[in-house]
Amino acid sequence: SCGKCRVKILEGTVESTPTHHISEEDYAAGWRLSCASKPASDVVVQVPDIASAYQSRMKTADLSTGEEVATFNKLQEDIRAAGVEISCDFVSAVLELSEPTLDDTMPDTERLELAAQAAFDGCTEVKLTYHTVKKLAKTLREANFKVQIAGTLDMGVLTVMDVTGKLDAPMIGCAIDIGTTTVTGVLLNLETGELVAKASSGNGQIRYGADVINRIIEQSKPGGVKRLQDAILKETLVPLTAVMCKSAGITADRIFRASVASNTTMNHLLLGVDANPVRMEPYIPTFFQWRGMVAKDLGFVANPDAEILIAPNIGSYVGGDITAGTFASLIWNKDEFSLFIDLGTNGELVFGNRDFMMSCACSAGPAFEGGDISCGMRATDGAVEAVEIDRDSMEPKLTIVGDAGQKPVGICGSGIIDVIAELYRTSIISSKGQFV
Amino acid sequence: SCGKCRVKILEGTVESTPTHHISEEDYAAGWRLSCASKPASDVVVQVPDIASAYQSRMKTADLSTGEEVATFNKLQEDIRAAGVEISCDFVSAVLELSEPTLDDTMPDTERLELAAQAAFDGCTEVKLTYHTVKKLAKTLREANFKVQIAGTLDMGVLTVMDVTGKLDAPMIGCAIDIGTTTVTGVLLNLETGELVAKASSGNGQIRYGADVINRIIEQSKPGGVKRLQDAILKETLVPLTAVMCKSAGITADRIFRASVASNTTMNHLLLGVDANPVRMEPYIPTFFQWRGMVAKDLGFVANPDAEILIAPNIGSYVGGDITAGTFASLIWNKDEFSLFIDLGTNGELVFGNRDFMMSCACSAGPAFEGGDISCGMRATDGAVEAVEIDRDSMEPKLTIVGDAGQKPVGICGSGIIDVIAELYRTSIISSKGQFV
Repeated sequence: SCGKCRVKILEGTVESTPTHHISEEDYAAGWRLSCASKPASDVVVQVPDIASAYQSRMKTADLSTGEEVATFNKLQEDIRAAGVEISCDFVSAVLELSEPTLDDTMPDTERLELAAQAAFDGCTEVKLTYHTVKKLAKTLREANFKVQIAGTLDMGVLTVMDVTGKLDAPMIGCAIDIGTTTVTGVLLNLETGELVAKASSGNGQIRYGADVINRIIEQSKPGGVKRLQDAILKETLVPLTAVMCKSAGITADRIFRASVASNTTMNHLLLGVDANPVRMEPYIPTFFQWRGMVAKDLGFVANPDAEILIAPNIGSYVGGDITAGTFASLIWNKDEFSLFIDLGTNGELVFGNRDFMMSCACSAGPAFEGGDISCGMRATDGAVEAVEIDRDSMEPKLTIVGDAGQKPVGICGSGIIDVIAELYRTSIISSKGQFV
Repeated sequence: SCGKCRVKILEGTVESTPTHHISEEDYAAGWRLSCASKPASDVVVQVPDIASAYQSRMKTADLSTGEEVATFNKLQEDIRAAGVEISCDFVSAVLELSEPTLDDTMPDTERLELAAQAAFDGCTEVKLTYHTVKKLAKTLREANFKVQIAGTLDMGVLTVMDVTGKLDAPMIGCAIDIGTTTVTGVLLNLETGELVAKASSGNGQIRYGADVINRIIEQSKPGGVKRLQDAILKETLVPLTAVMCKSAGITADRIFRASVASNTTMNHLLLGVDANPVRMEPYIPTFFQWRGMVAKDLGFVANPDAEILIAPNIGSYVGGDITAGTFASLIWNKDEFSLFIDLGTNGELVFGNRDFMMSCACSAGPAFEGGDISCGMRATDGAVEAVEIDRDSMEPKLTIVGDAGQKPVGICGSGIIDVIAELYRTSIISSKGQFV
């Protein structure tokens, strides 16, 4: 056993196999390994709050300081300056319809379509989505037949995605980065480009494995496809987006488009697509680039007909998070060479300039923190995150995550790299990693 | 109270208000009115099996005799002869893909798209639905990369709606008639036009009211929209279609298109659209004719991207069942005048020829059977369905639904019409309906 599933028994009794992972002192205090314990009664246990401690240490800027907004606006400017046009085909209009009478019994859809077509120059056809038709009768009557419609106008075809009595309701886009461990999202106004909400959370799939390989293995078990999809969708993205909608003061059906950047495994698990061929030789994903999915396909909280764009993968282990990041970094528009580094749970590098780019990937976080490192842990309270060894006294000096006085609990990735570097620098180990 | 909610107490006790609807004899036998009884313990009651008795008397032809198939084929011929082209844009093809290797790591979607485009002359673009992408990895590998694809080909754009290892899987259309009381469906092969399954059942909404007005009132109550939609969709159409799929030996995702004919209220309730404006002056439906709905919008059992066509309504009380029936009757193609009669729970008439047509509608079934007729009942066992009065002896002769020896229980619509006609014919009542 690895000793990581320690819990403290608060009430009741369990039958536990003895283990060297629990000291006599801790055993007396009620600590047991979950994996080696069988409840002998109803029990109340305390689970060490690693997850939320980790959460509380996540460094995610919010929109309150203005710093994040400034960065985002600067990026938009830079991308435009690089020659990329940022635009969308979303439109909205306020319509005042005549109320039906016994002499004017036109159905609601026709009444709306006629007014909608008149509201847009060059509009030759109006399509109404099911979402719009379903709410139309109530919306028109509650708003006394003065409503706002919004949707797309493409080649003269207006597709009405929503109708509302709230005449100034905005049209919103949603961008989400799904990391193996952390998920971040923003909402922005599709007309003005303004950021209106931001939120982060852990990836709900974490309990099915810390890295992509373990997630794929879990997905391959019976019911696994749905379990992994629910974990990222229902347990992570739905509440995350709900928080953002509330913060922006909008209803979810005002989200008219969403884009998701994530590694290849993450976007396969999100779609409920079998990722096992990504894991097994010859390592074939179902898709690199695929369009054609809308919110109702997934049950994502948004307008049911909002397209969900998946940033394209370019390899089984170099996914849309890297292509999106590389795009936004603008290294493809520079003469000088740049190195784009994404060190998350998976680590990817992109190197190049306007002439060429190359990329590679490997496991990063859990390879150090969770794998075969006996004291490995995430960079949360108690983690040794930096180490210095005094060249003369050989005394180590530790930097520990947490408040002053926090005692070391384990060692996280950066701590491990530091230890190895310092052991080498002080000639305790050789360049081959052997003790000299 | 109306006396229609009689139940027989088998176990337990209820507190009941006395009522003239229950005779002393019946009371002693345990009969009570549900609406006037309060359980004083757990009780077991017997509900008179009106619904299934009715069901067992429904006269619906199946496909076993060949008669139904012959009628259907004749109709297809007649419609073609009238100059209506019957065709569809569905296509299918069997593809043999090369299996991926370490030297050929193209993702599954690209592999399929390339082969699909090559399989159809003039195909310039291939779109894959989410349904296809989601099952692609497993389907390809289980079928050793030899699969059948099927979908639509329109203006060079192939939309792949399904991929399967079953190389001869048919493409199926589903046609459904939703009556206020009875629902009937057929499956047919979209390539050959052949009927492959047929089934009928009661409309699950019946417990929310026998006629459209009572259904609309029920829909207006809190949660009513979903309750009425679930009753027709989940409780009626889903099991009905499942039965047909089983009988035809297909999976539901092979249903590539569905069409529904029904009265205006029924199609509004099916879509979960507020039908209350249909009931209230000035009687405005949400739609007459609307396209843009697919199976996944409703949760209908079919390929998620199968379009569901609703036969167009032409009035708040003349719906798609009448336009569809009028179309199929071909009375619009004749010189002589015809009268198209649909006497269901609602009754509609269409009169005309190739020059003009007019229509009208009124309540039919329940107006006689369930409304204010004290002995009214449906045309099930025990219903007086025909009456003759001997002109000389004035003795009535009753025809009763059911096996020989069945005693009369009540009177159904045709019986009531007969009684009135016979009372008039024998001069017992005047042409104004007054007793003379």
